[in-house]
Amino acid sequence: MATQESSYGRLTAVSLGPGDPGWITRAGWQALEETECWAWPVKKVGATSYALEIVLRGGLEPPAHSLPLVFPMVRDRAALENAWKQAARETLTVLEQGRDVAFLIEGDGSFFATFGYLARQVKALQPAIDVTVIPGVSSPFASAAVAGVVLAEREECLAILPATVGLEKINHALDHFETVVLMKVKPVLKPLLELLQRRGIEENAVFVEQAGAPQCRVIRNHEQLAEEGVHYLSLAIITGVGSHGRS
Amino acid sequence: MATQESSYGRLTAVSLGPGDPGWITRAGWQALEETECWAWPVKKVGATSYALEIVLRGGLEPPAHSLPLVFPMVRDRAALENAWKQAARETLTVLEQGRDVAFLIEGDGSFFATFGYLARQVKALQPAIDVTVIPGVSSPFASAAVAGVVLAEREECLAILPATVGLEKINHALDHFETVVLMKVKPVLKPLLELLQRRGIEENAVFVEQAGAPQCRVIRNHEQLAEEGVHYLSLAIITGVGSHGRS
Repeated sequence: MATQESSYGRLTAVSLGPGDPGWITRAGWQALEETECWAWPVKKVGATSYALEIVLRGGLEPPAHSLPLVFPMVRDRAALENAWKQAARETLTVLEQGRDVAFLIEGDGSFFATFGYLARQVKALQPAIDVTVIPGVSSPFASAAVAGVVLAEREECLAILPATVGLEKINHALDHFETVVLMKVKPVLKPLLELLQRRGIEENAVFVEQAGAPQCRVIRNHEQLAEEGVHYLSLAIITGVGSHGRS
Repeated sequence: MATQESSYGRLTAVSLGPGDPGWITRAGWQALEETECWAWPVKKVGATSYALEIVLRGGLEPPAHSLPLVFPMVRDRAALENAWKQAARETLTVLEQGRDVAFLIEGDGSFFATFGYLARQVKALQPAIDVTVIPGVSSPFASAAVAGVVLAEREECLAILPATVGLEKINHALDHFETVVLMKVKPVLKPLLELLQRRGIEENAVFVEQAGAPQCRVIRNHEQLAEEGVHYLSLAIITGVGSHGRS
Protein backbone atom coordinates (compact mmCIF):
# COMPACT_ATOMS: atom_id res chain seq x y z
CA MET A 1 0.00 0.00 0.00
CA ALA A 2 1.25 3.50 -0.79
CA THR A 3 1.75 5.42 2.42
CA GLN A 4 0.95 9.08 2.24
CA GLU A 5 3.33 11.40 4.08
CA SER A 6 1.54 12.32 7.28
CA SER A 7 2.10 15.42 9.37
CA TYR A 8 1.48 13.34 12.49
CA GLY A 9 4.15 11.47 14.36
CA ARG A 10 3.98 7.66 14.37
CA LEU A 11 2.95 5.60 17.38
CA THR A 12 5.13 2.50 17.78
CA ALA A 13 4.65 -0.19 20.41
CA VAL A 14 8.03 -1.55 21.42
CA SER A 15 7.61 -5.06 22.90
CA LEU A 16 10.51 -5.47 25.32
CA GLY A 17 10.08 -9.09 26.38
CA PRO A 18 9.36 -9.95 30.01
CA GLY A 19 12.50 -8.82 31.79
CA ASP A 20 15.96 -9.49 30.36
CA PRO A 21 17.15 -6.48 28.31
CA GLY A 22 19.04 -9.00 26.15
CA TRP A 23 15.62 -10.22 24.98
CA ILE A 24 14.76 -6.86 23.42
CA THR A 25 14.77 -7.25 19.65
CA ARG A 26 17.19 -5.34 17.45
CA ALA A 27 14.25 -3.50 15.85
CA GLY A 28 12.88 -2.62 19.29
CA TRP A 29 16.23 -1.35 20.48
CA GLN A 30 16.65 0.75 17.35
CA ALA A 31 13.18 2.25 17.81
CA LEU A 32 14.11 3.20 21.38
CA GLU A 33 17.35 4.81 20.25
CA GLU A 34 15.70 6.77 17.46
CA THR A 35 12.45 7.92 19.05
CA GLU A 36 12.55 11.23 20.86
CA CYS A 37 9.52 10.61 23.05
CA TRP A 38 8.90 7.40 24.99
CA ALA A 39 5.67 6.58 26.78
CA TRP A 40 5.24 3.88 29.42
CA PRO A 41 2.43 2.68 31.66
CA VAL A 42 2.42 3.41 35.40
CA LYS A 43 -0.16 2.40 37.99
CA LYS A 44 -0.27 5.90 39.49
CA VAL A 45 1.49 9.25 39.16
CA GLY A 46 5.11 8.93 40.25
CA ALA A 47 5.11 5.11 40.30
CA THR A 48 7.89 3.05 38.73
CA SER A 49 7.35 1.15 35.51
CA TYR A 50 8.36 -2.49 35.06
CA ALA A 51 8.73 -1.87 31.32
CA LEU A 52 10.96 1.17 31.79
CA GLU A 53 13.11 -0.74 34.28
CA ILE A 54 13.87 -3.37 31.63
CA VAL A 55 15.20 -0.67 29.32
CA LEU A 56 17.16 1.04 32.10
CA ARG A 57 18.81 -2.31 32.93
CA GLY A 58 19.78 -2.45 29.25
CA GLY A 59 21.62 0.85 29.61
CA LEU A 60 19.33 3.24 27.75
CA GLU A 61 17.89 6.39 29.34
CA PRO A 62 14.51 7.86 28.40
CA PRO A 63 14.55 11.05 26.33
CA ALA A 64 13.85 14.28 28.24
CA HIS A 65 10.30 14.74 26.99
CA SER A 66 8.78 11.38 27.79
CA LEU A 67 5.29 10.40 28.97
CA PRO A 68 4.51 8.26 31.99
CA LEU A 69 0.86 7.35 31.30
CA VAL A 70 -1.40 6.36 34.18
CA PHE A 71 -3.28 3.06 33.76
CA PRO A 72 -4.77 2.37 37.18
CA MET A 73 -5.15 -1.26 38.35
CA VAL A 74 -8.88 -1.07 38.93
CA ARG A 75 -11.75 -3.24 37.72
CA ASP A 76 -14.23 -0.39 37.32
CA ARG A 77 -14.77 -0.18 33.58
CA ALA A 78 -15.70 3.52 33.50
CA ALA A 79 -12.63 4.53 35.53
CA LEU A 80 -10.43 2.48 33.23
CA GLU A 81 -11.92 3.98 30.09
CA ASN A 82 -11.39 7.48 31.44
CA ALA A 83 -7.75 6.66 32.17
CA TRP A 84 -7.21 5.24 28.68
CA LYS A 85 -8.85 8.31 27.11
CA GLN A 86 -6.67 10.63 29.17
CA ALA A 87 -3.56 8.65 28.18
CA ALA A 88 -4.65 8.75 24.54
CA ARG A 89 -5.11 12.54 24.66
CA GLU A 90 -1.63 13.03 26.14
CA THR A 91 -0.11 10.76 23.50
CA LEU A 92 -2.02 12.46 20.69
CA THR A 93 -0.76 15.89 21.81
CA VAL A 94 2.79 14.72 21.08
CA LEU A 95 1.86 12.99 17.82
CA GLU A 96 0.07 16.15 16.61
CA GLN A 97 3.33 18.03 17.00
CA GLY A 98 4.76 15.65 14.37
CA ARG A 99 6.85 13.85 16.98
CA ASP A 100 7.01 10.03 17.10
CA VAL A 101 6.13 8.15 20.27
CA ALA A 102 7.57 4.76 21.31
CA PHE A 103 5.31 3.01 23.83
CA LEU A 104 7.23 0.60 26.08
CA ILE A 105 5.63 -2.79 26.70
CA GLU A 106 6.79 -5.57 28.98
CA GLY A 107 6.32 -8.86 27.14
CA ASP A 108 4.59 -8.70 23.78
CA GLY A 109 2.25 -5.94 22.60
CA SER A 110 -0.46 -8.28 21.24
CA PHE A 111 -0.74 -10.29 24.44
CA PHE A 112 -2.32 -9.05 27.69
CA ALA A 113 -0.85 -5.60 27.08
CA THR A 114 -2.23 -2.16 27.83
CA PHE A 115 -1.17 -1.01 24.39
CA GLY A 116 -4.27 -2.39 22.65
CA TYR A 117 -6.52 -0.09 24.68
CA LEU A 118 -4.29 2.92 24.12
CA ALA A 119 -4.03 2.32 20.38
CA ARG A 120 -7.82 2.03 20.01
CA GLN A 121 -8.40 5.25 21.96
CA VAL A 122 -5.78 7.14 19.95
CA LYS A 123 -7.28 5.84 16.69
CA ALA A 124 -10.75 6.85 17.90
CA LEU A 125 -9.54 10.40 18.46
CA GLN A 126 -7.51 10.61 15.26
CA PRO A 127 -7.91 7.77 12.69
CA ALA A 128 -5.00 9.08 10.58
CA ILE A 129 -2.41 8.08 13.20
CA ASP A 130 -0.07 5.34 11.99
CA VAL A 131 0.23 2.59 14.63
CA THR A 132 2.87 -0.15 14.49
CA VAL A 133 3.60 -3.01 16.89
CA ILE A 134 7.15 -4.38 17.03
CA PRO A 135 6.61 -7.92 18.33
CA GLY A 136 8.63 -9.29 21.21
CA VAL A 137 9.42 -12.30 23.32
CA SER A 138 6.31 -13.18 25.31
CA SER A 139 6.52 -14.46 28.87
CA PRO A 140 5.29 -18.05 28.25
CA PHE A 141 8.08 -18.59 25.73
CA ALA A 142 10.74 -16.84 27.80
CA SER A 143 9.65 -18.83 30.84
CA ALA A 144 9.84 -22.10 28.91
CA ALA A 145 13.41 -21.28 27.90
CA VAL A 146 14.37 -20.37 31.47
CA ALA A 147 12.75 -23.52 32.90
CA GLY A 148 14.13 -25.77 30.16
CA VAL A 149 10.78 -27.10 29.01
CA VAL A 150 9.29 -27.44 25.53
CA LEU A 151 5.86 -25.86 24.98
CA ALA A 152 4.85 -27.80 21.86
CA GLU A 153 6.22 -30.33 19.41
CA ARG A 154 4.71 -32.30 16.49
CA GLU A 155 0.92 -32.42 16.86
CA GLU A 156 0.77 -31.02 20.40
CA CYS A 157 -1.63 -28.24 21.34
CA LEU A 158 -0.96 -25.33 23.65
CA ALA A 159 -3.51 -23.41 25.72
CA ILE A 160 -2.69 -20.10 27.41
CA LEU A 161 -5.21 -18.93 30.03
CA PRO A 162 -5.26 -16.27 32.70
CA ALA A 163 -5.35 -18.38 35.89
CA THR A 164 -8.19 -16.15 37.09
CA VAL A 165 -10.67 -17.56 34.53
CA GLY A 166 -11.74 -20.16 37.06
CA LEU A 167 -10.93 -23.77 37.90
CA GLU A 168 -13.53 -25.19 35.54
CA LYS A 169 -11.86 -23.71 32.47
CA ILE A 170 -8.42 -24.68 33.75
CA ASN A 171 -9.58 -28.26 34.28
CA HIS A 172 -11.07 -28.32 30.82
CA ALA A 173 -7.81 -27.08 29.25
CA LEU A 174 -5.83 -29.70 31.21
CA ASP A 175 -8.15 -32.38 29.79
CA HIS A 176 -7.69 -31.35 26.17
CA PHE A 177 -4.29 -29.72 25.69
CA GLU A 178 -0.83 -31.26 26.00
CA THR A 179 0.60 -28.02 27.43
CA VAL A 180 -1.27 -25.43 29.49
CA VAL A 181 0.21 -22.10 30.50
CA LEU A 182 -1.55 -20.23 33.28
CA MET A 183 -0.79 -16.52 33.48
CA LYS A 184 -1.19 -14.36 36.62
CA VAL A 185 -1.29 -17.27 39.09
CA LYS A 186 -0.78 -15.15 42.23
CA PRO A 187 -4.43 -14.46 43.16
CA VAL A 188 -5.43 -18.13 42.76
CA LEU A 189 -2.24 -19.88 43.85
CA LYS A 190 -3.75 -21.91 46.68
CA PRO A 191 -6.72 -23.43 44.79
CA LEU A 192 -4.47 -23.97 41.78
CA LEU A 193 -1.92 -25.97 43.79
CA GLU A 194 -4.79 -28.01 45.23
CA LEU A 195 -6.12 -28.69 41.74
CA LEU A 196 -2.73 -29.88 40.50
CA GLN A 197 -2.42 -32.15 43.53
CA ARG A 198 -5.94 -33.51 43.08
CA ARG A 199 -5.18 -34.38 39.46
CA GLY A 200 -1.80 -35.90 40.41
CA ILE A 201 0.09 -33.63 38.02
CA GLU A 202 2.21 -31.63 40.45
CA GLU A 203 5.39 -32.88 38.79
CA ASN A 204 4.17 -31.66 35.40
CA ALA A 205 4.03 -28.06 36.61
CA VAL A 206 6.80 -25.50 36.81
CA PHE A 207 6.26 -21.96 38.08
CA VAL A 208 8.31 -19.09 36.70
CA GLU A 209 8.40 -15.73 38.45
CA GLN A 210 9.62 -12.54 36.73
CA ALA A 211 11.26 -14.38 33.81
CA GLY A 212 14.50 -12.70 32.79
CA ALA A 213 14.59 -10.16 35.64
CA PRO A 214 17.43 -10.32 38.19
CA GLN A 215 14.90 -11.66 40.75
CA CYS A 216 13.72 -14.44 38.38
CA ARG A 217 12.84 -17.71 40.11
CA VAL A 218 11.95 -21.13 38.70
CA ILE A 219 10.00 -23.13 41.27
CA ARG A 220 8.94 -26.77 41.11
CA ASN A 221 8.51 -27.34 44.84
CA HIS A 222 4.84 -26.89 45.69
CA GLU A 223 5.38 -26.74 49.44
CA GLN A 224 7.77 -23.86 48.93
CA LEU A 225 5.21 -22.17 46.66
CA ALA A 226 2.42 -22.58 49.20
CA GLU A 227 4.64 -21.17 51.93
CA GLU A 228 6.34 -18.29 50.14
CA GLY A 229 3.69 -17.30 47.59
CA VAL A 230 4.66 -15.76 44.27
CA HIS A 231 5.21 -12.36 42.67
CA TYR A 232 2.31 -11.03 40.62
CA LEU A 233 4.36 -11.55 37.44
CA SER A 234 4.33 -15.33 37.72
CA LEU A 235 3.01 -18.06 35.49
CA ALA A 236 2.76 -21.84 35.54
CA ILE A 237 3.67 -24.14 32.66
CA ILE A 238 2.05 -27.56 32.81
CA THR A 239 3.38 -30.04 30.26
CA GLY A 240 2.57 -33.62 29.36
CA VAL A 241 -1.13 -33.40 30.10
CA GLY A 242 -4.20 -33.50 27.81
CA SER A 243 -4.51 -36.59 25.63
CA HIS A 244 -0.80 -37.42 26.08
CA GLY A 245 -0.80 -36.94 29.82
CA ARG A 246 -1.37 -38.97 32.92
CA SER A 247 -4.59 -37.26 33.87
CA MET B 1 23.64 -23.32 41.41
CA ALA B 2 27.42 -23.29 41.22
CA THR B 3 28.58 -24.04 37.71
CA GLN B 4 31.70 -26.12 37.42
CA GLU B 5 34.06 -25.16 34.64
CA SER B 6 33.50 -27.74 31.90
CA SER B 7 35.95 -28.82 29.23
CA TYR B 8 33.04 -29.12 26.78
CA GLY B 9 31.76 -26.32 24.62
CA ARG B 10 28.26 -24.98 25.33
CA LEU B 11 25.25 -25.65 23.12
CA THR B 12 23.08 -22.56 22.71
CA ALA B 13 19.81 -22.42 20.82
CA VAL B 14 19.42 -19.02 19.22
CA SER B 15 15.75 -18.31 18.53
CA LEU B 16 15.72 -15.95 15.55
CA GLY B 17 12.02 -15.13 15.30
CA PRO B 18 10.05 -16.10 12.21
CA GLY B 19 11.64 -14.01 9.49
CA ASP B 20 12.59 -10.38 10.06
CA PRO B 21 16.24 -10.09 11.16
CA GLY B 22 15.17 -7.04 13.16
CA TRP B 23 13.21 -9.44 15.38
CA ILE B 24 16.38 -11.24 16.50
CA THR B 25 17.00 -10.40 20.13
CA ARG B 26 20.12 -8.57 21.26
CA ALA B 27 21.22 -11.66 23.23
CA GLY B 28 20.66 -13.85 20.17
CA TRP B 29 22.63 -11.50 17.93
CA GLN B 30 25.48 -11.38 20.41
CA ALA B 31 25.57 -15.19 20.62
CA LEU B 32 25.80 -15.35 16.83
CA GLU B 33 28.64 -12.83 16.75
CA GLU B 34 30.60 -14.59 19.50
CA THR B 35 30.12 -18.26 18.63
CA GLU B 36 32.69 -19.77 16.29
CA CYS B 37 30.53 -22.66 15.13
CA TRP B 38 26.90 -22.32 14.02
CA ALA B 39 24.61 -25.24 13.30
CA TRP B 40 21.35 -25.06 11.38
CA PRO B 41 18.74 -27.54 10.21
CA VAL B 42 18.41 -28.49 6.54
CA LYS B 43 15.97 -30.90 4.94
CA LYS B 44 18.70 -32.64 2.91
CA VAL B 45 22.40 -32.27 2.18
CA GLY B 46 23.06 -29.07 0.24
CA ALA B 47 19.59 -27.59 0.88
CA THR B 48 19.06 -24.01 2.00
CA SER B 49 17.98 -23.19 5.54
CA TYR B 50 15.15 -20.78 6.35
CA ALA B 51 16.82 -20.04 9.70
CA LEU B 52 20.19 -19.26 8.13
CA GLU B 53 18.53 -17.01 5.54
CA ILE B 54 17.09 -14.84 8.32
CA VAL B 55 20.59 -14.27 9.70
CA LEU B 56 22.07 -13.65 6.25
CA ARG B 57 19.38 -11.01 5.61
CA GLY B 58 20.53 -9.42 8.86
CA GLY B 59 24.04 -9.09 7.45
CA LEU B 60 25.91 -11.77 9.40
CA GLU B 61 27.86 -14.57 7.71
CA PRO B 62 28.32 -18.03 9.24
CA PRO B 63 31.76 -18.87 10.62
CA ALA B 64 33.95 -21.07 8.42
CA HIS B 65 33.51 -24.25 10.46
CA SER B 66 29.75 -24.47 10.68
CA LEU B 67 27.39 -27.44 10.66
CA PRO B 68 24.39 -27.85 8.37
CA LEU B 69 22.52 -30.69 10.14
CA VAL B 70 20.11 -32.87 8.18
CA PHE B 71 16.60 -33.23 9.66
CA PRO B 72 14.58 -34.92 6.91
CA MET B 73 10.87 -34.06 6.51
CA VAL B 74 9.64 -37.61 6.92
CA ARG B 75 7.01 -39.14 9.20
CA ASP B 76 8.87 -42.43 9.74
CA ARG B 77 9.86 -42.32 13.40
CA ALA B 78 12.92 -44.60 13.07
CA ALA B 79 14.34 -42.59 10.15
CA LEU B 80 13.82 -39.39 12.13
CA GLU B 81 15.51 -40.75 15.24
CA ASN B 82 18.48 -41.87 13.18
CA ALA B 83 18.78 -38.40 11.69
CA TRP B 84 18.60 -36.74 15.13
CA LYS B 85 21.24 -39.12 16.49
CA GLN B 86 23.52 -38.43 13.56
CA ALA B 87 23.03 -34.65 14.03
CA ALA B 88 23.71 -35.04 17.77
CA ARG B 89 26.95 -36.94 17.12
CA GLU B 90 28.17 -34.24 14.70
CA THR B 91 27.31 -31.52 17.20
CA LEU B 92 28.95 -33.39 20.08
CA THR B 93 32.17 -33.78 18.08
CA VAL B 94 32.51 -29.99 18.04
CA LEU B 95 31.47 -29.58 21.69
CA GLU B 96 34.04 -32.21 22.75
CA GLN B 97 36.74 -30.05 21.20
CA GLY B 98 35.75 -27.39 23.71
CA ARG B 99 34.13 -25.24 21.02
CA ASP B 100 30.72 -23.65 21.54
CA VAL B 101 27.89 -24.29 19.09
CA ALA B 102 25.04 -21.86 18.32
CA PHE B 103 22.04 -23.68 16.84
CA LEU B 104 19.91 -21.40 14.62
CA ILE B 105 16.15 -21.66 15.05
CA GLU B 106 13.43 -19.93 13.06
CA GLY B 107 10.77 -18.76 15.50
CA ASP B 108 11.22 -19.80 19.13
CA GLY B 109 13.23 -22.78 20.38
CA SER B 110 10.56 -24.09 22.77
CA PHE B 111 7.81 -24.13 20.18
CA PHE B 112 7.55 -26.61 17.29
CA ALA B 113 11.31 -26.50 16.87
CA THR B 114 13.79 -29.21 15.92
CA PHE B 115 16.08 -28.09 18.70
CA GLY B 116 14.25 -30.06 21.42
CA TYR B 117 15.04 -33.34 19.68
CA LEU B 118 18.66 -32.40 19.09
CA ALA B 119 19.19 -31.27 22.68
CA ARG B 120 17.73 -34.51 24.07
CA GLN B 121 19.95 -36.63 21.82
CA VAL B 122 23.07 -34.63 22.70
CA LYS B 123 22.23 -34.90 26.41
CA ALA B 124 21.68 -38.66 26.01
CA LEU B 125 25.15 -39.03 24.53
CA GLN B 126 26.84 -36.69 27.02
CA PRO B 127 24.81 -35.50 30.03
CA ALA B 128 27.50 -33.00 31.04
CA ILE B 129 26.79 -30.72 28.06
CA ASP B 130 25.40 -27.34 29.07
CA VAL B 131 22.33 -26.47 26.96
CA THR B 132 20.78 -23.00 26.88
CA VAL B 133 17.82 -21.66 24.92
CA ILE B 134 17.73 -17.95 24.10
CA PRO B 135 14.00 -17.31 23.63
CA GLY B 136 12.69 -15.48 20.61
CA VAL B 137 9.67 -13.94 18.94
CA SER B 138 7.33 -16.79 18.03
CA SER B 139 5.32 -16.73 14.82
CA PRO B 140 1.81 -16.33 16.36
CA PHE B 141 2.92 -13.15 18.13
CA ALA B 142 4.86 -11.79 15.15
CA SER B 143 1.89 -12.54 12.89
CA ALA B 144 -0.51 -10.77 15.26
CA ALA B 145 1.71 -7.68 15.14
CA VAL B 146 1.91 -7.79 11.34
CA ALA B 147 -1.84 -8.30 10.96
CA GLY B 148 -2.70 -5.69 13.59
CA VAL B 149 -4.75 -8.01 15.80
CA VAL B 150 -4.63 -8.61 19.55
CA LEU B 151 -4.22 -12.23 20.69
CA ALA B 152 -5.50 -11.85 24.24
CA GLU B 153 -6.71 -9.19 26.68
CA ARG B 154 -8.21 -9.31 30.17
CA GLU B 155 -9.69 -12.76 30.84
CA GLU B 156 -9.39 -14.06 27.29
CA CYS B 157 -7.94 -17.46 26.52
CA LEU B 158 -5.67 -18.38 23.63
CA ALA B 159 -5.33 -21.80 21.98
CA ILE B 160 -2.51 -22.64 19.58
CA LEU B 161 -2.96 -25.82 17.55
CA PRO B 162 -1.27 -27.37 14.56
CA ALA B 163 -4.04 -27.21 11.94
CA THR B 164 -3.29 -30.84 11.13
CA VAL B 165 -4.74 -32.09 14.45
CA GLY B 166 -8.11 -32.51 12.80
CA LEU B 167 -11.32 -30.54 12.42
CA GLU B 168 -12.86 -31.92 15.61
CA LYS B 169 -10.15 -30.46 17.83
CA ILE B 170 -10.22 -27.19 15.88
CA ASN B 171 -13.99 -26.95 16.32
CA HIS B 172 -13.63 -27.65 20.00
CA ALA B 173 -11.02 -24.90 20.42
CA LEU B 174 -13.23 -22.45 18.51
CA ASP B 175 -16.06 -23.28 20.92
CA HIS B 176 -14.03 -22.61 24.06
CA PHE B 177 -11.29 -20.06 23.34
CA GLU B 178 -11.61 -16.39 22.43
CA THR B 179 -8.58 -16.61 20.13
CA VAL B 180 -7.40 -19.65 18.19
CA VAL B 181 -4.15 -19.76 16.25
CA LEU B 182 -3.77 -22.57 13.74
CA MET B 183 -0.21 -23.36 12.70
CA LYS B 184 0.79 -25.12 9.44
CA VAL B 185 -2.51 -24.51 7.63
CA LYS B 186 -1.25 -25.43 4.15
CA PRO B 187 -2.08 -29.17 4.09
CA VAL B 188 -5.64 -28.58 5.38
CA LEU B 189 -6.43 -25.21 3.83
CA LYS B 190 -9.53 -26.30 1.90
CA PRO B 191 -11.40 -28.08 4.74
CA LEU B 192 -10.35 -25.29 7.10
CA LEU B 193 -11.83 -22.58 4.88
CA GLU B 194 -15.02 -24.64 4.62
CA LEU B 195 -15.16 -24.97 8.40
CA LEU B 196 -14.78 -21.21 8.91
CA GLN B 197 -17.52 -20.60 6.35
CA ARG B 198 -19.82 -23.18 7.94
CA ARG B 199 -19.39 -21.52 11.32
CA GLY B 200 -19.90 -18.05 9.81
CA ILE B 201 -16.58 -16.80 11.19
CA GLU B 202 -14.71 -16.07 7.96
CA GLU B 203 -14.34 -12.43 8.94
CA ASN B 204 -12.76 -13.39 12.27
CA ALA B 205 -9.85 -15.10 10.51
CA VAL B 206 -6.66 -13.60 9.15
CA PHE B 207 -3.97 -15.70 7.46
CA VAL B 208 -0.32 -14.68 7.71
CA GLU B 209 2.29 -16.22 5.45
CA GLN B 210 6.03 -16.05 6.21
CA ALA B 211 5.70 -13.32 8.86
CA GLY B 212 8.57 -10.88 8.68
CA ALA B 213 10.14 -12.28 5.52
CA PRO B 214 10.27 -10.09 2.39
CA GLN B 215 7.55 -12.32 0.85
CA CYS B 216 5.26 -11.90 3.88
CA ARG B 217 1.55 -11.74 3.06
CA VAL B 218 -1.47 -10.96 5.23
CA ILE B 219 -4.60 -12.43 3.65
CA ARG B 220 -8.20 -11.97 4.73
CA ASN B 221 -9.85 -12.78 1.41
CA HIS B 222 -10.88 -16.43 1.47
CA GLU B 223 -11.56 -16.65 -2.26
CA GLN B 224 -8.01 -15.51 -2.90
CA LEU B 225 -6.73 -18.08 -0.39
CA ALA B 226 -8.70 -20.91 -1.99
CA GLU B 227 -7.41 -19.92 -5.41
CA GLU B 228 -3.77 -19.16 -4.68
CA GLY B 229 -3.06 -21.51 -1.76
CA VAL B 230 -0.49 -20.63 0.90
CA HIS B 231 3.18 -21.16 1.68
CA TYR B 232 3.94 -23.95 4.17
CA LEU B 233 4.99 -21.32 6.74
CA SER B 234 1.48 -19.94 7.14
CA LEU B 235 -0.85 -19.68 10.07
CA ALA B 236 -4.37 -18.45 10.76
CA ILE B 237 -5.39 -16.23 13.66
CA ILE B 238 -9.08 -16.42 14.54
CA THR B 239 -10.22 -13.81 17.06
CA GLY B 240 -13.48 -13.01 18.78
CA VAL B 241 -14.72 -16.59 18.98
CA GLY B 242 -15.25 -18.91 21.98
CA SER B 243 -17.59 -17.64 24.65
CA HIS B 244 -17.24 -14.04 23.40
CA GLY B 245 -17.79 -14.86 19.78
CA ARG B 246 -20.64 -15.21 17.37
CA SER B 247 -20.35 -18.96 17.06
